[in-house]
Amino acid sequence: MKPTETETPIGGLPFKSRRRPLIVKKFGGTSVANIDRIRRIARLALESQREGNDVVVVVSAMSGETDRLLKLAHQVLPLPEGREMDVIAATGEQVTVALTALAIQAEGGKSSSFLGHQLPVITDSAFTRARIQCVEQGPIREALARGQIAVVAGFQGVDPRNNITTLGRGGSDTTAVAVAAALGADVCEIYTDVEGVFTADPRVCPAGSKLKSIPYEEMLELASLGAKVLQVRSVEIAMKYNVPVHVRSSFSDEEGTLIVPRDKMLESRRLMGLACEKGQVRVELIGAECRPGLVAELTYLLADLNVSVDMLCHSRGAVENPRADISFTLPEGELRRAQPSLEQFLGKLGATGLQISTDLAKVTLVGIGLRSDPGIAARLCRSLTQQGIHVSGLSVNELRISCLVESGAADRAICILHETFELAGEAPAEPLASATPA
Amino acid sequence: MKPTETETPIGGLPFKSRRRPLIVKKFGGTSVANIDRIRRIARLALESQREGNDVVVVVSAMSGETDRLLKLAHQVLPLPEGREMDVIAATGEQVTVALTALAIQAEGGKSSSFLGHQLPVITDSAFTRARIQCVEQGPIREALARGQIAVVAGFQGVDPRNNITTLGRGGSDTTAVAVAAALGADVCEIYTDVEGVFTADPRVCPAGSKLKSIPYEEMLELASLGAKVLQVRSVEIAMKYNVPVHVRSSFSDEEGTLIVPRDKMLESRRLMGLACEKGQVRVELIGAECRPGLVAELTYLLADLNVSVDMLCHSRGAVENPRADISFTLPEGELRRAQPSLEQFLGKLGATGLQISTDLAKVTLVGIGLRSDPGIAARLCRSLTQQGIHVSGLSVNELRISCLVESGAADRAICILHETFELAGEAPAEPLASATPA
Repeated sequence: MKPTETETPIGGLPFKSRRRPLIVKKFGGTSVANIDRIRRIARLALESQREGNDVVVVVSAMSGETDRLLKLAHQVLPLPEGREMDVIAATGEQVTVALTALAIQAEGGKSSSFLGHQLPVITDSAFTRARIQCVEQGPIREALARGQIAVVAGFQGVDPRNNITTLGRGGSDTTAVAVAAALGADVCEIYTDVEGVFTADPRVCPAGSKLKSIPYEEMLELASLGAKVLQVRSVEIAMKYNVPVHVRSSFSDEEGTLIVPRDKMLESRRLMGLACEKGQVRVELIGAECRPGLVAELTYLLADLNVSVDMLCHSRGAVENPRADISFTLPEGELRRAQPSLEQFLGKLGATGLQISTDLAKVTLVGIGLRSDPGIAARLCRSLTQQGIHVSGLSVNELRISCLVESGAADRAICILHETFELAGEAPAEPLASATPA
Repeated sequence: MKPTETETPIGGLPFKSRRRPLIVKKFGGTSVANIDRIRRIARLALESQREGNDVVVVVSAMSGETDRLLKLAHQVLPLPEGREMDVIAATGEQVTVALTALAIQAEGGKSSSFLGHQLPVITDSAFTRARIQCVEQGPIREALARGQIAVVAGFQGVDPRNNITTLGRGGSDTTAVAVAAALGADVCEIYTDVEGVFTADPRVCPAGSKLKSIPYEEMLELASLGAKVLQVRSVEIAMKYNVPVHVRSSFSDEEGTLIVPRDKMLESRRLMGLACEKGQVRVELIGAECRPGLVAELTYLLADLNVSVDMLCHSRGAVENPRADISFTLPEGELRRAQPSLEQFLGKLGATGLQISTDLAKVTLVGIGLRSDPGIAARLCRSLTQQGIHVSGLSVNELRISCLVESGAADRAICILHETFELAGEAPAEPLASATPA
């Protein structure tokens, strides 16, 4: 990026009116896995600085390190206290920020590291899965003003009582986007081991192709549906603060995927892509008393159990026999935790039974206007059925259509739908560079 | 320790007047080297708490961990910046405090960990060798009031700008003593891999015996002279704030050595012990101009080079030929750094030469009143000379006599002097328990 004139220069010397573009670059665990790779990202950051940008780098722990550290904690206590877990886990990023700052110095640059408590990155007190409340930008601004590259520890923060917290898996993405939001950065670049966001996982569907851009809302759906490119929370923050996010590969110079407001889209696509979550279970509560607030009660119950429910359907029996059927899906791993409470709940409702179907996959098509065009859901069901794949559940909202199929058929379903909806075909796009927000 | 009545109960309910004894226990790297050992110190701490004490634990990094971390930094940059070194090094203790707190919880106790920046432990900004300026006791007091064992990270602090600092090798001793001083602890127990302070290193001199107690001043001399039991700075703080320090083994229940004010000594010994520093170099500046302030100039020069000079002697020639000879010792490793500046200095003085003798050892006898009794220095020289050991330098002050011998003869010199001064014999001592300060 070249230095840009600010829209409304506010007096002073000419150079005062010249704002340098600010880029936040986030590197994940595989990008800092060893000293050589750390040197590589140091060079990337310096190159960007030499091109005239202010550069902030956010790093994760070396890959495998967080697991190693948490294993230590679990050796001491099977269910370790969250507060102490976070103290241990935060050391992973603490090592990589300092090594990265040193690597930048080794390449002739200036750099300082910043830990979560040094900025600070203030979070709530939900240890091991804290949410960022605010990021203080002062220390980074000072470092940038001194010509330094600021290296910020991802994944970690402090709560208002100065306890160390961590943000959960993928939390460094969220740190990067939150730092970019606080600084009003021009772009937040997420370097990862994939090349961007794909219409479908290319390992499953070889026709899956990289998206040049995707709106925040659709990315949010994809992220929450098992396309493990970004932590969901990071997309929420990007959307809230209008931070352009560029997901790209650490191992190539190619452009990746821009996540932007809908009006900044590079291509006029309606359907974005397909996501798949395997290991799903469908739970049906049969013949419950049909009373007001029934679904609300159920969702509170499930929220208390911290169970991620999806595809909740509620059907009401005939007027003369007002019994309700409720069904929903949840990950297999969470069923064991939820089942006893669900059975108790059933008892209270006088329901006739709990029917559980296992070994399912949720295949989801993400796009815009999916609810308002019933033709899409129809095509989806028909094309799968024609190929002998049974669709055992369907849920539609504005941005996604999800269907339940047997796990064994999921990959084939992805490929069929990819072709049905011609997701590989790309609308002609403007060159990416010109779309980078100034 | 049993709960003790305070001297002057300040009104209120009866139990208010009862102050629980407070013990700070410091465990070094070998005591936290693995999960089993961490469990062991958790049990030790809980046992002490159950006996009615408030307990604060200070821990080092797992042995070898600090070296591993610093090696990472050196791989990136041969001379890494101190600020980033400290960020990396501080993670070692960060892991062990949390594991120790978890281990205490695993044993059924309550515990919280505290990092340097969380108390905070405020230091100056001399990265990698910072000095503690103050320790905030509030967070520890709160934890103790909740019935917790507070686990404090040794070795680390923050400077007034919230940069992470470390205190240098052995810095956890200093943390422990500073925490004990801030809290007005009844005793600071330093658990280590030796059984206490010895009259001479038993590996060198089998007759070396454990001291029951030693005054701060003499311990300071021993610590600074290569008896690697405690960091010198920790003894300085203990002396300044009158903190009783108990050096003892992590691997046995036996009493170790108490470091106390002279008037609390358990035994009436005059000579405390022998220390030895090998790898010494003697530098002689020959025939320098004899002008006022010469020695001051030299010591400033050496201080600028951060060279630890000892045994500085200054002799003045005859009146008709006023040339000065100056000699001093320094560690071999520091000679290379100092030599160019020394040669320059010589040139300015018109001195005739710089004579350097290598491969020397400094053997030091520590005790009280050594200057006022010239007989001791005489006996020292005579006994070594009689056994064929050449004494090439001698320096005497109130608390120590140091002599220079060839490195190869140092161990034998220690044994000879140990016998000459009958250091193995102990004066009858009061039982240790009764001397523990109330």
